[in-house]
Amino acid sequence: MTPGPTPSGERVGLKHGAGGRAMRTLIEEVFLTLGGPVDGVGLAALDDGAALRLGDQWLVVTTDSHVVQPAFFPGGDIGRLAICGTVNDLAMMGCTEVLGLTCAVVLEEGYRREDLLRVRDSMRQACQEAGATVIAGDTKVMGKGELDGIVVNTTGVGLTRRLVRDDGLRPGDKVILTGTAGDHGLAVLAARRDLRIEGDLVSDVAPLNGLVRSALDAGGTEVVAMKDPTRGGVASALHEFASKARVGILLDGPTVPLSPGTMAAAEILGIDPLLVANEGKALIGVRAGAAERVLAAVRAHPLGRRAAVVATAIPERPGQIVLDTGLGKRILAEAEGDPLPRIC
Amino acid sequence: MTPGPTPSGERVGLKHGAGGRAMRTLIEEVFLTLGGPVDGVGLAALDDGAALRLGDQWLVVTTDSHVVQPAFFPGGDIGRLAICGTVNDLAMMGCTEVLGLTCAVVLEEGYRREDLLRVRDSMRQACQEAGATVIAGDTKVMGKGELDGIVVNTTGVGLTRRLVRDDGLRPGDKVILTGTAGDHGLAVLAARRDLRIEGDLVSDVAPLNGLVRSALDAGGTEVVAMKDPTRGGVASALHEFASKARVGILLDGPTVPLSPGTMAAAEILGIDPLLVANEGKALIGVRAGAAERVLAAVRAHPLGRRAAVVATAIPERPGQIVLDTGLGKRILAEAEGDPLPRIC
Repeated sequence: MTPGPTPSGERVGLKHGAGGRAMRTLIEEVFLTLGGPVDGVGLAALDDGAALRLGDQWLVVTTDSHVVQPAFFPGGDIGRLAICGTVNDLAMMGCTEVLGLTCAVVLEEGYRREDLLRVRDSMRQACQEAGATVIAGDTKVMGKGELDGIVVNTTGVGLTRRLVRDDGLRPGDKVILTGTAGDHGLAVLAARRDLRIEGDLVSDVAPLNGLVRSALDAGGTEVVAMKDPTRGGVASALHEFASKARVGILLDGPTVPLSPGTMAAAEILGIDPLLVANEGKALIGVRAGAAERVLAAVRAHPLGRRAAVVATAIPERPGQIVLDTGLGKRILAEAEGDPLPRIC
Repeated sequence: MTPGPTPSGERVGLKHGAGGRAMRTLIEEVFLTLGGPVDGVGLAALDDGAALRLGDQWLVVTTDSHVVQPAFFPGGDIGRLAICGTVNDLAMMGCTEVLGLTCAVVLEEGYRREDLLRVRDSMRQACQEAGATVIAGDTKVMGKGELDGIVVNTTGVGLTRRLVRDDGLRPGDKVILTGTAGDHGLAVLAARRDLRIEGDLVSDVAPLNGLVRSALDAGGTEVVAMKDPTRGGVASALHEFASKARVGILLDGPTVPLSPGTMAAAEILGIDPLLVANEGKALIGVRAGAAERVLAAVRAHPLGRRAAVVATAIPERPGQIVLDTGLGKRILAEAEGDPLPRIC
């Protein structure tokens, strides 16, 4: 066996799990060699999931482990997050019908059964909202002090006739954000720090497959790229769009929807809502001619009422995000690592 | 939402992750309500994985999180274990061609990159042996002290035309054990306690899909049940065979292959090799007329040289295992929980 390239640092840091550049580097240096050639979308694509050709359809597969802390937060908990995160990754590939989910739970010895039942009930509720079912599971227990509470892995499989990738933008295309930015990350951080905010500050965690179905029904093949801005937030997802499609992206700052509670928390904590995780939002890239049609369809969905066109793909500055703040333009750097560890 | 049944105890214990009766009770009380009706094998079947009908084939899906401690042990490590465990669960459903594996890693802050590369290399090696590829992944990092090192989840998907279940035994059927019992569990425990044993004591962790293919080629539809005796060991797997098929099983103790190192460790530690995990063995139930043919095919495979017919399904004592020790017969109880936490 030939050893892989030696990563730059000697030890893994929190930033390596935080969804920014550091994480991508770790994945590229360590894990990508596990992938092999596949008939479809494999590991090397670093998309939201994998897609394998099955006859005239695509089998989409996606996995996520969830370590959010606190496990219960305003608007949701680790169970709802796990189901929604996986349903949404499938949806971002164009796969809005979930064949099945697996659920593997690792618990710390002494974990309260009452909490476990709450997590289970949230999973069941989210499954109902998504029209999804858990088909296989696993349970492990680690000793007291060996794990901080609970880790939940969910993997999802689904079939779709049309695959939507995250590299399809061309100059001129529009990008729709389906609602307010940064709610999940700031709600979790506020809960962690026991911050009291005036007004609502709740996670947006929700299954997006219904909303995505509406968008695809309205936009058809003019929907050309999708990504859910989880770790690393809107900034990180737009960077992936831009670098994979080799376009620049002009982000019109004032058009980004923000909720009052999230704005307040962002100000107090000094954290940019564009850089933190969302768990119930999608970025949808569409051909310009279809933008209004898709936007209307998204807004007609209960989870998309505050959707807006927030960005345009441009030929200049490929791979970069130009943020127009309304007062001037600047380059929006990708977070090195999300400022919030254990955000999902 | 109607709350589920309240589990008997208030807190989760190590035994709830150990593969015995306690774990099954936890799963039944807490998680089974997440499953719904599926066209195939869903959560309620508690088989090695799920199976969904896709045209004239079955899509098999299985998941496992791995928490083995120590993560590096004689004969393997957590990376090899994760790949093999999932490949083997697919194989036990009759699915010997792996479409793809997902790999989700949770790391403790400060985890050594050198160790991560070793784990990655082991995964790659095991993938090569199994003819499998990692198609999707995820990386999370928890803070220092929030996780004891590393947790690896692997989920596998595959297609098969014929599904093999674990409930197919009829009185008169024979059960083949494909090699020595208890090697993985005792090797890990000996490593954990820094026990020095004369002779070899190494984990048997290996991908079994090639061996299972040989068995199925030889036995066809006369192969009627398969299970890999992981947590809870041969005893637990036979109990599942017996209770699901409503037969008794007569286990011929002296025919169970044992390696000298494992026997020595079992004696020193006072642990029955029938009750601890294997990670490279299968129990294969076959119609009596095919037993010799399947046994010969298994023995011809490098991983099956020490295979033996060890048990017979009987009409008496449905759901129970009768152990013939050679000196007399006794009921072999299922472990309440594996004596070894974090064995896989």
